[in-house]
Amino acid sequence: MELPDLFARYRTELDEYLRSALPQESPALLYRMMRYHLGWEDQQGRPLTEGAGKALRPTLCLWACQAMGGDWRTALPAAAALELAHNFSLVHDDIQDGDKERRHRPTVWSLWGQPQAINAGDSLLILGHLVMLRLEERDVAPAKVIEACRVLDEACLTMIKGQCLDIGFEGEREVSVEAYLDMIAKKTGALLGASLHLGALVAVDDEPTVSRFARCGHLLGLAFQIRDDILGVWGAADVTGKPVAADIRRRKKCLPVVYAMAVAQAKEREQLLRVYSQGTPSDEDVGTVLQLLDSHRAYDYCQQMAQERIEQALEELAPVDMESTARNELEAVAKFVLGREF
Amino acid sequence: MELPDLFARYRTELDEYLRSALPQESPALLYRMMRYHLGWEDQQGRPLTEGAGKALRPTLCLWACQAMGGDWRTALPAAAALELAHNFSLVHDDIQDGDKERRHRPTVWSLWGQPQAINAGDSLLILGHLVMLRLEERDVAPAKVIEACRVLDEACLTMIKGQCLDIGFEGEREVSVEAYLDMIAKKTGALLGASLHLGALVAVDDEPTVSRFARCGHLLGLAFQIRDDILGVWGAADVTGKPVAADIRRRKKCLPVVYAMAVAQAKEREQLLRVYSQGTPSDEDVGTVLQLLDSHRAYDYCQQMAQERIEQALEELAPVDMESTARNELEAVAKFVLGREF
Repeated sequence: MELPDLFARYRTELDEYLRSALPQESPALLYRMMRYHLGWEDQQGRPLTEGAGKALRPTLCLWACQAMGGDWRTALPAAAALELAHNFSLVHDDIQDGDKERRHRPTVWSLWGQPQAINAGDSLLILGHLVMLRLEERDVAPAKVIEACRVLDEACLTMIKGQCLDIGFEGEREVSVEAYLDMIAKKTGALLGASLHLGALVAVDDEPTVSRFARCGHLLGLAFQIRDDILGVWGAADVTGKPVAADIRRRKKCLPVVYAMAVAQAKEREQLLRVYSQGTPSDEDVGTVLQLLDSHRAYDYCQQMAQERIEQALEELAPVDMESTARNELEAVAKFVLGREF
Repeated sequence: MELPDLFARYRTELDEYLRSALPQESPALLYRMMRYHLGWEDQQGRPLTEGAGKALRPTLCLWACQAMGGDWRTALPAAAALELAHNFSLVHDDIQDGDKERRHRPTVWSLWGQPQAINAGDSLLILGHLVMLRLEERDVAPAKVIEACRVLDEACLTMIKGQCLDIGFEGEREVSVEAYLDMIAKKTGALLGASLHLGALVAVDDEPTVSRFARCGHLLGLAFQIRDDILGVWGAADVTGKPVAADIRRRKKCLPVVYAMAVAQAKEREQLLRVYSQGTPSDEDVGTVLQLLDSHRAYDYCQQMAQERIEQALEELAPVDMESTARNELEAVAKFVLGREF
């Protein structure tokens, strides 16, 4: 499934704006790590033609601003801040998980070591804060700039809380579906909520409407993460850039597994717990787990859950007055989130 | 040498305000790590009566506000933000350096592991940002709140640049005195500069005066760090909480060593380079290095350099009109920075 057209509309100016938020400064290494992570350079520092990510968060932010009748360019500082904050979390996440690859490329820590990668992540977060302040240059009222900073900071804090819970799950034998959903609401929902929140906030002064955008983004985020979990188990390796059943191999307590654990018979649960309590599972173990997930229709359960969140997300914005183009775009994004293969 | 009286004046309200910036929230682990690091709790989560640090940065911030005729309580959000940002850098620094102890206590990462300690540091930074926004509650004009955020963010970014350079030094055979001074200007000077900067900014609308406070703080920061380097080599273990000649044992390219490397004879340089290119030095090696530093009067050189920075710092504020009490307090801080043993 292709990215909705929407993503192309903002791409060039967004990229340009992001680059202006991250100029070449010294120490060279610090900026090189960030540019590398963002997909602007290869590991030798040679320029690459395009960034690596989907830019989902900034795109949603700019879309929300435009959907509410604002000039989307006004929201560029917020969009850039979201993308930088998101990438801060990825750089630290890769260290925390010990992941050596992301998007088919070696991770920052695997190239430059953990100490410097911590610095790269910290700088991305701080640069995200700094670029948000540039809303002022676009004639956003100072009080609203402060509100935007608060929205971003609170989302970042919630995201770290989610990360803390997620890492904690590794040490637990079992995780309930409820605890899992709370974790992803924090880890993924918060920043996607902030994305729509910030775009709408920049465009209008209508708190109830802005809150609808925030909740819509949050629900989209949940659906996005659940789809991510699906891809982590059943995604095609050549598209996702991860090995087949990657999250089973890493013994991740992703939704399909958490669900299966909750509904499995005693004997099956023992099997699952055995695989998840040992070292790297063998291909046979991975096969056993996949079979168990299939027998409980874990794929359908997860996809259904994502679908429900998407429906709730669209309902949030149903009462909001917007042009049909904007609404069609939101529906295209919703469809993309549910059907994406990467 | 005792802390100047100044530190006691703000202590109670500062502690209280800091605690309000860091309420008990979930996940418990995240907040426990932060409270532990700040010295509010022991590792079992039992309350301790007082925080662990000197609170140098917030104290200087509150002092600057008061010295410029402001109500120092107005600057409490900035003071708390500085302390949280400083502690963010310490938590990450301990991971990066692999240090197992700080202030006679196990470091956060050594108790809860690196992944969770990264989260603790990230949260401290974000909470620092959030509390800064509370300047708004104290009737600071929104445009000034934004300026305060910018000052803090730029100082944090500069601090990470310094950290990046410092870690880079480990991989270099030799570091020049000039490169070393540039590194500490970033790693320590920036946030101390921001401390006086923010206090003055909150109190007055006079840019040239505010800049003088910023430069004064920066210079105090350099002197503070140089004294820190002195204590890292010649400090008494029972006072500093570090082993004797701790920085030599860790083969840190601190100012005494950087200086000695620059002025040593060829044969001495070879000795130094040999000790610094191997694993943990023996007691004999440490003795050799200490003797070499003494023969080049490295202590006097460093202390003289700190003294010069302190004099420049005081000169910056000489033309600024302030009450004699405030000026005496600044001089007491200057004296403390130069003579402190901890």
